[in-house]
Amino acid sequence: AANKKLLILPGDGIGPEVMGEVRRIIGWFEKARGLSFDIAEDLVGGAAIDAYGTPLADKTLDLAMGADAVLLGAVGGPKWEPLPFEIRPERGLLKLRKEMQLYANLRPAIVFDELADASTLKREVVAGLDILIIRELTGDLYFGTPRGVETLPDGTRRGINTMVYTSPEVRRVTKIAFDLARKRGSKVCSVDKANVVETTEMWREEVIKLHGEGYEDIQLSHMYVDNAAMQLVRNPKQFDVIVTGNIFGDILSDEAAMLTGSLGMLPSASLGDPDETGRRRALYEPVHGSAPDIAGQGIANPLATVLSFAMMLRYSFDLDEAANQVEQSVRNVLARGLRTGDIMQPGMTRVSTQAMGEAIVEEL
Amino acid sequence: AANKKLLILPGDGIGPEVMGEVRRIIGWFEKARGLSFDIAEDLVGGAAIDAYGTPLADKTLDLAMGADAVLLGAVGGPKWEPLPFEIRPERGLLKLRKEMQLYANLRPAIVFDELADASTLKREVVAGLDILIIRELTGDLYFGTPRGVETLPDGTRRGINTMVYTSPEVRRVTKIAFDLARKRGSKVCSVDKANVVETTEMWREEVIKLHGEGYEDIQLSHMYVDNAAMQLVRNPKQFDVIVTGNIFGDILSDEAAMLTGSLGMLPSASLGDPDETGRRRALYEPVHGSAPDIAGQGIANPLATVLSFAMMLRYSFDLDEAANQVEQSVRNVLARGLRTGDIMQPGMTRVSTQAMGEAIVEEL
Ligand SMILES: CC(C)[C@H](C(=O)O)[C@@H](O)C(=O)O
Ligand SMILES: CC(C)[C@H](C(=O)O)[C@@H](O)C(=O)O
Repeated sequence: AANKKLLILPGDGIGPEVMGEVRRIIGWFEKARGLSFDIAEDLVGGAAIDAYGTPLADKTLDLAMGADAVLLGAVGGPKWEPLPFEIRPERGLLKLRKEMQLYANLRPAIVFDELADASTLKREVVAGLDILIIRELTGDLYFGTPRGVETLPDGTRRGINTMVYTSPEVRRVTKIAFDLARKRGSKVCSVDKANVVETTEMWREEVIKLHGEGYEDIQLSHMYVDNAAMQLVRNPKQFDVIVTGNIFGDILSDEAAMLTGSLGMLPSASLGDPDETGRRRALYEPVHGSAPDIAGQGIANPLATVLSFAMMLRYSFDLDEAANQVEQSVRNVLARGLRTGDIMQPGMTRVSTQAMGEAIVEEL
Repeated sequence: AANKKLLILPGDGIGPEVMGEVRRIIGWFEKARGLSFDIAEDLVGGAAIDAYGTPLADKTLDLAMGADAVLLGAVGGPKWEPLPFEIRPERGLLKLRKEMQLYANLRPAIVFDELADASTLKREVVAGLDILIIRELTGDLYFGTPRGVETLPDGTRRGINTMVYTSPEVRRVTKIAFDLARKRGSKVCSVDKANVVETTEMWREEVIKLHGEGYEDIQLSHMYVDNAAMQLVRNPKQFDVIVTGNIFGDILSDEAAMLTGSLGMLPSASLGDPDETGRRRALYEPVHGSAPDIAGQGIANPLATVLSFAMMLRYSFDLDEAANQVEQSVRNVLARGLRTGDIMQPGMTRVSTQAMGEAIVEEL
């Protein structure tokens, strides 16, 4: 097989540290399995602002567009917070998503048995939880125009933003939800606010239409976003796959992530459409942030980034077996009692970022 | 004192049943305390659709505009779900809010000690929880224009909705949050998505400005909505008062409500500005819905509506003592072990809607 072109963007805060452990794992796959990756590395977010004056330089975007997959650490930190809206670290991430047309954000919320007690929810409510939230990522309030704040003659300020979706945008992300649901529990819940917001009424109608076009085997339901926020707390295990728009997905996927009690364990993937050569643009990143407060101390949890790498093996390179192997190794090190500080429990062994990475390689 | 003009809108489903118990309590206050209410009653929601062909008749709106306070049960049910957007039961509620300019929706999320185990969250995370979410209720995606779905020449459908806020709208609801916080823990967290959505960046700036104009004693913080959805699960007791926009508030207040595990206990108030005579338009309603599945069986929990009535005594009529008395009676009946089906626990006594109402009157 041809080399796999990989762009690594460690980003800010703990990003570089956790990414170091992924490189260790990549090294193992190259040596022991003969996989070969063609790796480029560059800056994004605050690090790019410092070096290039912009959170996403054109040449970095070019590298991303040319790569088979992008692996990102995390962006942001207090240092860059006073900067104006348009050049803050987050803009780099939003621009990457938009330019690469990564319209489907896959956010699994999984509770590992060993970590079920870390949740603020009762064990029986979350043990065994395994839901997949698919958030549309290139539309909605995030990118809609007109947008901005104007000052009226009398001094009043007026802010507007636009929620906008087209039917093809709804269909393509729903299709991904249906296709992925087939490999799981075949249940999809589409979340909207169809009783108030017309755009999401259209969303619901398009989901129903696509369901009738060959996806009748999928058990489809619809839920208002306020109710979904409730149901995730009441009984999260009722869900299999949830599909929703960008802003609702931003909120619900973070709520769902926190149900697990261990943010340091959660990966994500953002996928686009396959191009002419069949290659699907894709970006993988942990759900957690850049955690500037613990950066540089070697104590960050690398497992969310390691699991993001596993998602990359599966979704970008069809290496299901290798992906399973990485995921199983994560389970094994947890079973051995190894814990970074964020998931530490009484009786377990506290380890550093690096020791956690080494333990994963041992298990492989 | 002049008669207190009250409009009662029982609505659909269990609305009429739970409202019956409030009338019982009103009767007690009239007889035992000499309070005198001038009560009108009318239809809203599905019941109004059936009788008047519209979810909110003009004459009902007139009654509401002329009342000192409106007490509403719940609206909606499967019977009216197939109806088109513009004449569904919810539209009646939205029109009431908008016409009465009820811009501040107060949604307490309180965990009664006796019911702490009903939560899906661990007891220690929610016991003693007492937060107040203040949701802006007359702006945002709910009412912004342009809105709607158009079909483009190529058959593509395109939906748009508009998030819009003006600075005076932000200031007036924030002022209510600051004023109410002073009577509690003096902490306000304003929730926005200022890193992505300019309207909410303006929101944040206006909140900061108002804070500097005589509210420096309030401990003010700001949080992104996705993080707020997480923090409510991680550690809800970190909050005192939360203030946010209409759509974020819709989602977060329902999430917060479910943290308590007992929706049947949660009241709400929606307030407008005082008019020339000093009278503040106001509507009070339970957080729970119309529960058509259990309607007419006499088993619904009337306590959320009873507690909404207590909020009315406090906010519309300055009858703090009477309000406290109602709230204390609710605590007493819980302490006596009385429970409707929705909050039933082993070892407690299951009672009907009516028996619960009678028990409250006994305690009074
Ligand atoms: C950093 C921010 C712009 C971003 C978003 O809102 O999409 C983040 O919250 C996320 O979910 O990836
Ligand atoms: C019924 C619906 C229109 C309403 C809303 O979204 O405001 C409800 O969810 C609420 O929170 O009161």
